[in-house]
Amino acid sequence: MAISIDWGGGVCYRFHAIWLRDNALDPATRSKDNGQRLITLADVPKDTHIVSAIPSDNKISLRFAPEEKSVEFASDWLRSHAYDYDHTSTDTLISSAMTCWSRDTFFSGTNASSRGIPTVRYEELLKDKLCLRTWLEGVNRYGVATITDGPCESGALMRIVDSFGYVRETNYGRWFDVRTTVNPTNLAYTGLGLQAHTDNPYRDPVPTLQILYCLESSATGGVSQVVDGFEAVRRLREESAEYFNLLSGYSARFAYEGSSGVNLSSKRPMIELDATGELVCVRFNNRSAAPIVDVPFDKMTSYYEAYRRFGEIIDAEEMSVEFKLVPGSSFIVDNTRVLHARTGYSGVGDRWLQGCYADKDGLLSTLSSLASA
Amino acid sequence: MAISIDWGGGVCYRFHAIWLRDNALDPATRSKDNGQRLITLADVPKDTHIVSAIPSDNKISLRFAPEEKSVEFASDWLRSHAYDYDHTSTDTLISSAMTCWSRDTFFSGTNASSRGIPTVRYEELLKDKLCLRTWLEGVNRYGVATITDGPCESGALMRIVDSFGYVRETNYGRWFDVRTTVNPTNLAYTGLGLQAHTDNPYRDPVPTLQILYCLESSATGGVSQVVDGFEAVRRLREESAEYFNLLSGYSARFAYEGSSGVNLSSKRPMIELDATGELVCVRFNNRSAAPIVDVPFDKMTSYYEAYRRFGEIIDAEEMSVEFKLVPGSSFIVDNTRVLHARTGYSGVGDRWLQGCYADKDGLLSTLSSLASA
Repeated sequence: MAISIDWGGGVCYRFHAIWLRDNALDPATRSKDNGQRLITLADVPKDTHIVSAIPSDNKISLRFAPEEKSVEFASDWLRSHAYDYDHTSTDTLISSAMTCWSRDTFFSGTNASSRGIPTVRYEELLKDKLCLRTWLEGVNRYGVATITDGPCESGALMRIVDSFGYVRETNYGRWFDVRTTVNPTNLAYTGLGLQAHTDNPYRDPVPTLQILYCLESSATGGVSQVVDGFEAVRRLREESAEYFNLLSGYSARFAYEGSSGVNLSSKRPMIELDATGELVCVRFNNRSAAPIVDVPFDKMTSYYEAYRRFGEIIDAEEMSVEFKLVPGSSFIVDNTRVLHARTGYSGVGDRWLQGCYADKDGLLSTLSSLASA
Repeated sequence: MAISIDWGGGVCYRFHAIWLRDNALDPATRSKDNGQRLITLADVPKDTHIVSAIPSDNKISLRFAPEEKSVEFASDWLRSHAYDYDHTSTDTLISSAMTCWSRDTFFSGTNASSRGIPTVRYEELLKDKLCLRTWLEGVNRYGVATITDGPCESGALMRIVDSFGYVRETNYGRWFDVRTTVNPTNLAYTGLGLQAHTDNPYRDPVPTLQILYCLESSATGGVSQVVDGFEAVRRLREESAEYFNLLSGYSARFAYEGSSGVNLSSKRPMIELDATGELVCVRFNNRSAAPIVDVPFDKMTSYYEAYRRFGEIIDAEEMSVEFKLVPGSSFIVDNTRVLHARTGYSGVGDRWLQGCYADKDGLLSTLSSLASA
């Protein structure tokens, strides 16, 4: 059973009685203190139906039987929660909250929307809520942003995380040094160039944000590069639905056991889609890719072709945005989406970054709160 | 191109040349320091093929062209990484690392495997690596375990997390008090009973582990209950493939804004499967379930029927294992799998738990390291 509400102008949405009852906002259904639902679905009779629906100014009063319960809904609330539309009419791959990008998006002079990677000064980020909000919106939309003019102090990156969320501590610590070491436990701690990658795909769940903060950069090389993995997926799918289906339809494996007592592994696809086909995570890391054993023999050749082509798209020059971090500058990436790379460099102690992980839940919560303040 | 290796006894596995080359374990391909891959797939020629394969004691020597590169593989390594088998022959829903359970599993006297929820004494957990390993194996297999005889000290739960991993800090802090408060920001901070639920489904990624540690339990009621969500999914699928497909095929929504500055929301299915149909996460929480808007109108009635039935299975008495925490005792759940509940209680200050979140990556890493030590 459902009711139909006509908003005029040909817009008409239907709502089911059970959906309306479950989502009632009255104080017996939802706590006035914290908005949480006080009942379970078992408390709602199976044969719930609507015995009267009375519209008035900007709201509608419903009476439910057999509970004999009256509930009011604001029209705006109903309209913003409508589900009676064609869910298949739009491409679901990329969330509308995100804008895909490549080098030209940020750096082409002829592109009207070109304005560079979102950036903010360190002190503004910490002191100015509007700057923080604008910057967080940038992180959310592009999956990457920079911070400039911060102090050259060990641990200064912690204050960036504190501005919007919480550190995800791992075996690498609350934060970690990225510089050349003797007997490196990770290739990141060498002067080698690193192919564009997402961090820690061997960890499940992956850290969803990463910050890299520069304290020393006198080495030649060591240029940072970022690539939009979602744009790479979009291009791969456009080129070959088969390749896209292979990388999203079979699990890859990732592993890391570089340090004593650390033995991490995961089984997840390189291209992770949710139940509705929306892209939720890219995992790509040549260093920690473990043998792929979940692809059947007769698909493995095609899988490797898809993997190779995905890597070629990621490595293509036009996909990559480059910058060289100077001491006190840093960048953040959405580690479920944006890959980062660095060119090789030489010299011990001439390039010193600090890194840390965090999660998007805190970022999105802070952003929502700032936006509604 | 592939080679075929006959292990005798009718066991014969094929491996592709490109797969073998990519997974070579020689020091030019994998770092001797940390095991990470030093090359990318772009470094491997597209037309890679094998020009000779020479088996000898427990290994096989391969020569790849056009690189003119020789690599040795241990036979055991190849056999343990074989992918040339029928990947469709087994039900992939539940990982073989897990054993599903219901009340009888742990408490039926007639069940030979019945032995109670895995448990350990607090001091043993911290001091005895074998006890820690056995207990972690239990957590991994059943998704729930208890700890007894710990100190009645605020923060004692932190040492449990330290034994295997890292805290996932959230807006609730590194840890938080669960007791009746005035103006509760969460229904958990009241004396109300709570339906079996997973924590923080409004957070993405969800915290994958939760610990609840008891400091005071003189109230009547407040009994803890745990339910295996994976068993509930298994039963739902057995009853109705349609219900299973609905709850796994469409996203639900969850939200929490109970505290100032906190505005969390997520869009994820109640039953989350990976690309290969393996169950990876159950999200079920009546308090934070937000309006479901991603299910088309013509599926919503069936979706609600499925949601109701899933709740009935979860609420069924035979699914639930009960225990009352005494001061100094605690339990851990895999929050992607095992739901927890509590019965209502009354009195302010008569029931006091502390809770915290952590992640499974650290637990699994510690377990692997202990197992291979």
